Amino acid sequence: MRFDEAYSGKVFIMSRNTHEDADAIIYGMPMDWTVSFRPGSRFGPNRIREASIGLEEYSPYLDRHLEEVNYFDAGDIPLPFGSAERSIDMIRDYVRQIIAKDKFPLGLGGEHLVSWPVLQAMYEKYPDMAVIHIDAHADLRVEYEGEVLSHSTPIRKVCENYGAENVYSFGIRSGMREEFQYAKESGMYMARYEVAKPLAEVLPKLAGRPVYVTIDIDVLDPAFAPGTGTAEAGGISSKELLEAIHLIAKSDVKVVGADLVEVAPVYDPTEKTPIAASKFIREILLGWVKK
Amino acid sequence: MRFDEAYSGKVFIMSRNTHEDADAIIYGMPMDWTVSFRPGSRFGPNRIREASIGLEEYSPYLDRHLEEVNYFDAGDIPLPFGSAERSIDMIRDYVRQIIAKDKFPLGLGGEHLVSWPVLQAMYEKYPDMAVIHIDAHADLRVEYEGEVLSHSTPIRKVCENYGAENVYSFGIRSGMREEFQYAKESGMYMARYEVAKPLAEVLPKLAGRPVYVTIDIDVLDPAFAPGTGTAEAGGISSKELLEAIHLIAKSDVKVVGADLVEVAPVYDPTEKTPIAASKFIREILLGWVKK
Amino acid sequence: MRFDEAYSGKVFIMSRNTHEDADAIIYGMPMDWTVSFRPGSRFGPNRIREASIGLEEYSPYLDRHLEEVNYFDAGDIPLPFGSAERSIDMIRDYVRQIIAKDKFPLGLGGEHLVSWPVLQAMYEKYPDMAVIHIDAHADLRVEYEGEVLSHSTPIRKVCENYGAENVYSFGIRSGMREEFQYAKESGMYMARYEVAKPLAEVLPKLAGRPVYVTIDIDVLDPAFAPGTGTAEAGGISSKELLEAIHLIAKSDVKVVGADLVEVAPVYDPTEKTPIAASKFIREILLGWVKK
Amino acid sequence: MRFDEAYSGKVFIMSRNTHEDADAIIYGMPMDWTVSFRPGSRFGPNRIREASIGLEEYSPYLDRHLEEVNYFDAGDIPLPFGSAERSIDMIRDYVRQIIAKDKFPLGLGGEHLVSWPVLQAMYEKYPDMAVIHIDAHADLRVEYEGEVLSHSTPIRKVCENYGAENVYSFGIRSGMREEFQYAKESGMYMARYEVAKPLAEVLPKLAGRPVYVTIDIDVLDPAFAPGTGTAEAGGISSKELLEAIHLIAKSDVKVVGADLVEVAPVYDPTEKTPIAASKFIREILLGWVKK
Amino acid sequence: MRFDEAYSGKVFIMSRNTHEDADAIIYGMPMDWTVSFRPGSRFGPNRIREASIGLEEYSPYLDRHLEEVNYFDAGDIPLPFGSAERSIDMIRDYVRQIIAKDKFPLGLGGEHLVSWPVLQAMYEKYPDMAVIHIDAHADLRVEYEGEVLSHSTPIRKVCENYGAENVYSFGIRSGMREEFQYAKESGMYMARYEVAKPLAEVLPKLAGRPVYVTIDIDVLDPAFAPGTGTAEAGGISSKELLEAIHLIAKSDVKVVGADLVEVAPVYDPTEKTPIAASKFIREILLGWVKK
Amino acid sequence: MRFDEAYSGKVFIMSRNTHEDADAIIYGMPMDWTVSFRPGSRFGPNRIREASIGLEEYSPYLDRHLEEVNYFDAGDIPLPFGSAERSIDMIRDYVRQIIAKDKFPLGLGGEHLVSWPVLQAMYEKYPDMAVIHIDAHADLRVEYEGEVLSHSTPIRKVCENYGAENVYSFGIRSGMREEFQYAKESGMYMARYEVAKPLAEVLPKLAGRPVYVTIDIDVLDPAFAPGTGTAEAGGISSKELLEAIHLIAKSDVKVVGADLVEVAPVYDPTEKTPIAASKFIREILLGWVKK
Repeated sequence: MRFDEAYSGKVFIMSRNTHEDADAIIYGMPMDWTVSFRPGSRFGPNRIREASIGLEEYSPYLDRHLEEVNYFDAGDIPLPFGSAERSIDMIRDYVRQIIAKDKFPLGLGGEHLVSWPVLQAMYEKYPDMAVIHIDAHADLRVEYEGEVLSHSTPIRKVCENYGAENVYSFGIRSGMREEFQYAKESGMYMARYEVAKPLAEVLPKLAGRPVYVTIDIDVLDPAFAPGTGTAEAGGISSKELLEAIHLIAKSDVKVVGADLVEVAPVYDPTEKTPIAASKFIREILLGWVKK
Repeated sequence: MRFDEAYSGKVFIMSRNTHEDADAIIYGMPMDWTVSFRPGSRFGPNRIREASIGLEEYSPYLDRHLEEVNYFDAGDIPLPFGSAERSIDMIRDYVRQIIAKDKFPLGLGGEHLVSWPVLQAMYEKYPDMAVIHIDAHADLRVEYEGEVLSHSTPIRKVCENYGAENVYSFGIRSGMREEFQYAKESGMYMARYEVAKPLAEVLPKLAGRPVYVTIDIDVLDPAFAPGTGTAEAGGISSKELLEAIHLIAKSDVKVVGADLVEVAPVYDPTEKTPIAASKFIREILLGWVKK
Repeated sequence: MRFDEAYSGKVFIMSRNTHEDADAIIYGMPMDWTVSFRPGSRFGPNRIREASIGLEEYSPYLDRHLEEVNYFDAGDIPLPFGSAERSIDMIRDYVRQIIAKDKFPLGLGGEHLVSWPVLQAMYEKYPDMAVIHIDAHADLRVEYEGEVLSHSTPIRKVCENYGAENVYSFGIRSGMREEFQYAKESGMYMARYEVAKPLAEVLPKLAGRPVYVTIDIDVLDPAFAPGTGTAEAGGISSKELLEAIHLIAKSDVKVVGADLVEVAPVYDPTEKTPIAASKFIREILLGWVKK
Repeated sequence: MRFDEAYSGKVFIMSRNTHEDADAIIYGMPMDWTVSFRPGSRFGPNRIREASIGLEEYSPYLDRHLEEVNYFDAGDIPLPFGSAERSIDMIRDYVRQIIAKDKFPLGLGGEHLVSWPVLQAMYEKYPDMAVIHIDAHADLRVEYEGEVLSHSTPIRKVCENYGAENVYSFGIRSGMREEFQYAKESGMYMARYEVAKPLAEVLPKLAGRPVYVTIDIDVLDPAFAPGTGTAEAGGISSKELLEAIHLIAKSDVKVVGADLVEVAPVYDPTEKTPIAASKFIREILLGWVKK
Repeated sequence: MRFDEAYSGKVFIMSRNTHEDADAIIYGMPMDWTVSFRPGSRFGPNRIREASIGLEEYSPYLDRHLEEVNYFDAGDIPLPFGSAERSIDMIRDYVRQIIAKDKFPLGLGGEHLVSWPVLQAMYEKYPDMAVIHIDAHADLRVEYEGEVLSHSTPIRKVCENYGAENVYSFGIRSGMREEFQYAKESGMYMARYEVAKPLAEVLPKLAGRPVYVTIDIDVLDPAFAPGTGTAEAGGISSKELLEAIHLIAKSDVKVVGADLVEVAPVYDPTEKTPIAASKFIREILLGWVKK
Repeated sequence: MRFDEAYSGKVFIMSRNTHEDADAIIYGMPMDWTVSFRPGSRFGPNRIREASIGLEEYSPYLDRHLEEVNYFDAGDIPLPFGSAERSIDMIRDYVRQIIAKDKFPLGLGGEHLVSWPVLQAMYEKYPDMAVIHIDAHADLRVEYEGEVLSHSTPIRKVCENYGAENVYSFGIRSGMREEFQYAKESGMYMARYEVAKPLAEVLPKLAGRPVYVTIDIDVLDPAFAPGTGTAEAGGISSKELLEAIHLIAKSDVKVVGADLVEVAPVYDPTEKTPIAASKFIREILLGWVKK
């Protein structure tokens, strides 16, 4: 190896060296300043990258190899500590650039609020887009203790700005009464507790549509993903989340972007949360990113 | 907020400020001196309280909110270190006071031996009471290495003093041969390995009866609750324990008291054990405490 | 013990049951939303309280017992997540109430920004007050990545609003070049790397003056206090910080308030950081709170 | 107890004091020098022994007690750090001695490469032996980054030297494309993702044959066994592995030896991995070792 | 290596295979049932043994090699959980046997109460013996919350039964006022905060006398030994404790026995406490055990 | 920020984007396959990089800012797992390239054996070079359990190949008797236990000479750096190591290269070891790299 080949630090395994020909861009959003319980997801993106070095590059589930997908890990957006508003603006601008070049944005969180500016950018390009939301929490609050910019509000914002009928939530097992009422009355779709089974029913209805998928790692039971801020007992297994990813991969929806958020490594000294997350990212790259 | 409003330290989320009108009393029993493997459950009650601040106050499972239940968290009983005998006396007296005022005692352990004096007090008031015991271990020993006051003996004591036919154990997957033989011969009910399914069968038989429920967190697989002294592989999931709690809530038994024991936080740096325990306590409050 | 005696949850050891006659008020400021490296100090106050139960109530250093000091632990101020501005307002109001009743405010952080509103309130009452600042970091930034409300700015704010000549910093070993230049030019006092020796020299000059002391736990080397957000190698020992507390106790300054900030328990599974912090709080109560 | 009774250090619970009459020999292989991701399994054997003190000596699954099986824990083979070749030679010689005396070798790993010399020794004695391989990884590589002695190659070596048709793999969910192709073409048996169900189908075909069973703890999902080097999301539960052990115990195969490998304690501060492993070893002793 | 050479489990590095010719006996006392804060020292002895495998067998401090000292690690005394009284009787009997054969007893704790029965046995043989006590805590209580058998009482018992003038305490920085008063009035020697310097002054006075040394690991600052139940900030460094051990080794006292207690591994995931303890044991073996 | 600006993953803070004009090259050597106690230093380099984001870019010790030094972090050399021989060849070749362009090589380990090939390359260019070796261990073994390529041998190799009189070791407190004898007889310099004081004496003798400095993080006491494989109680403080770095910076030696090895993050959940290491690297960059 030549030292001037600029093998630069730590990126997701098999990231290409340049964004030029990449079909997908991996990027981190290291923000956790609005979380209400345990902060720490700002360190999520880099630990997912680190864990990726333990992965096989081939998936026996999808019979596909990472060399068949052209992607570039662009690193983390340098978000300003403590300022939700400015962070959101930076993320929105950043994603606009990615999709302006027709690349697939694959975001790593950070708290769930980061998905909101991403979705704003996505809707500019794909007005008829549906959102698949996989999470333990409804994230349908109007505000949280007076703050409208909170990790508990992003899905509500999507419903209100782009139509609740375009939002499909899965695995929800926590929220305020008002959130569950809103889910019922607003016209959005919400599957409680389960993911794979209801998803299999919903996917045919979305055939042909552009779809953005946002996954909060806390949809998993804390047994599988303890490294997250707001762990919630009674969740699904890693197996079921893998199945969900594969269902989407094999469906007729057109995935146009995705994110995986809320990995907070410090609460998981076993590292199994970033290890699992890196595998989900591999399966997303192999299953959702098409030429 | 006025500083003299005496917002005092850490209590279970939404605890009322006074016991006067409370229907239920939460209290801790920080004792672990007779455990045979890994001590540490003395710190269980306070970590369950701490974890409760991450909870939603509403349960989508039961469609009920904590403001609909009037309860008071009375703190921990100051038990004397190393003295099982004196600790047991203090607990018995303490619970007698709670039930003398017709309040629902909801105890947080501490090792499982703490349930014995609670049950003594309960039987004084409810002589026809049945006991639902959810645990990995039979806890049917006569003694443990010569000690009759041991965390392995409380259920045996109940059988012998109040009738084995009133005891219903679920989830049992560990014990001595003698304990399983006793279970067969004594007339008690014991379901091995499983909880929700056999419970659904048993509950109708207990309709109308006063029932005390004691849950040892180690009934869960260590995947779901590693923070316990005597972890035992091959257990149930958090989902199944939630289901069990909801089955009881929706049954026709009359729950008159309950405890959740053996949370030992130091063995779980992820905090998922106290986080799960605090959710179980929320569901117990919402499902079992009636006016 | 009677169950209705309202032994309520977790407070600092030997806290009295009411604020009425208390000479000092312990209160928590669970805020960490502007930290630039590792968040988590929002859980500091309660873990310091929890660790206090392992303390002896008597200090052989000062030959004094906690029963000789009348203090009340008022719990945590319920600060709104993610909003530095509103949090600061709440803290300022809260402390105003304490000093309006001539009580000694003893604050537990939380990030260091919390000291700013405390000091604003203190200066309203004690315009001639000096500030003793014990910390690894200068905290003299004008802003941090565009934010004027940041954990790196509180001491600068004090200098600019109340006179740099009233600020005495000790133990400083980290900061921007601009901060060290400001320290030199502004007229404030700054001792680099060391605490006890320069403090012994400075204290006689402050004799008779009202003094507020703010201690950032990261003045200790990470060997002694790893549980903090911005650990900085090359710090002082616990022994030296104890010596500093005792020097102040035996000096002729009139301590009118104090805080201890930046304990972030999740980075210290050994718990030695909150254990040490609880001992510092004991010595502060015994040494600085006078009738 | 007399001090000269040579109660010697830490051995698996109820190990007899001498190998003379033992039917089974437990031995450790503390080697991890060829692992590609996270090393540390060299400490596996002793932590499994330590965890065994928390076990009941009776199995309610098999209705058998450890006093009914005569086994001796011989400690760890003192393998030379960093030398795979010399370690392999030592292990092969060691196991030859055990089986020369018709004892059942029960090995504790260490990385999976240790199974290769064990199997060489076993095939010398049992040329018609079948191998049951329970693992997350195919371990069918020819070499790993140029090294033929790697923890990724042992099963390939067995196939090539003793006939792929004698190898039965279960639970496989990770590997290179070439490994899965080899599995298909070579004539070996491979069940992906699942263990208990396919095993129930395969066991009757092996009736009467000598069988060696090698278990890599990473067949479990990291939820159940995070303490392993190459954790792989999407695995089976402890319950399913217990079921597999019991299926084999109740089948008509003749188990002639076994090992459990890849327990790396440092990645599991909860200790649930060695705790589970010690239970698996108990069930193996009770179910597979016959007079 | 032959498998029947009975390399048995885990013992302190270079332990001989038999007690017959041994000059010193290492033995564990895995008891922690009377501790008032954090239990867990029952696992101390075995983790000290485990850590010893990382030691060099030669000491550059003493220029001596472990092969020059003949010692046998006899394992742990199987103490009954939760019964302080019976445990104490077992320990006393056990040590009597060791000294009956003129061997040096080197005990590993366990809580500090274990030193009491050891000292009773020692005084039977050496009535003119002095005790050197190195600890953070005075351990001079008469009782602890009503219990006379407590980890806070052993040194008081020694003073009262064998003469306070024979007790020399070093490093003390915690206790009740009554304990410090007793220290002053009883005629015992107590050095506060420091160890090496006062020890150098005291040792010449003890020249020629038989001396027993009991070391509580918490004399070290938690920076050096966080893995202990009652960590106490403001302690000495590992370097100073090594110096103290070497001072005793080079003095003219005749050390007749020793123990090192209160290592509680679970509070130290870095393992530095048992690692340091194993080094202290090596230096004790090399420096204090004479033919 | 533009997404195509290739902000690439994780590098040491303020690394320039290209090696072209860099005066120093930071590179990682993620190898730990010959360690005798606890492996894991392969993850050292990347965790040092991660921790660097918490650093100030300015040093008050040296009054210099990282923008004043032009350096490039080239990432890790992709070393083959388990093969010491091939790894050594790769490292030697890699470093030859760096010094061929007259750049300062600043290596991050990995185990200490990695320094051997670096030093071979350095001596090719600087035949009159001296080596400053700061470590807890002598590393003067001829072989370790039969292996000549071991982390215990690099300094011996230097002595034998380039002259023992060119080697200056500091802080040594562990090794075999033979190593200390060799140190005495071979003509090398060895200072036991201490670093700063003897270094201050030695440096003037080396004035004007090219010097390579190799630092093993375990020279620090485990209190300051528990995250290392072979922790050794009784070491120096972070303060003393900082002082040593500054002594060299201010001396008249010409530092031509350096490395910092043996950071093993998994043994330090507090992260204080990589946090301290990143500060040492900053001071080395600011103090030793000259134009």
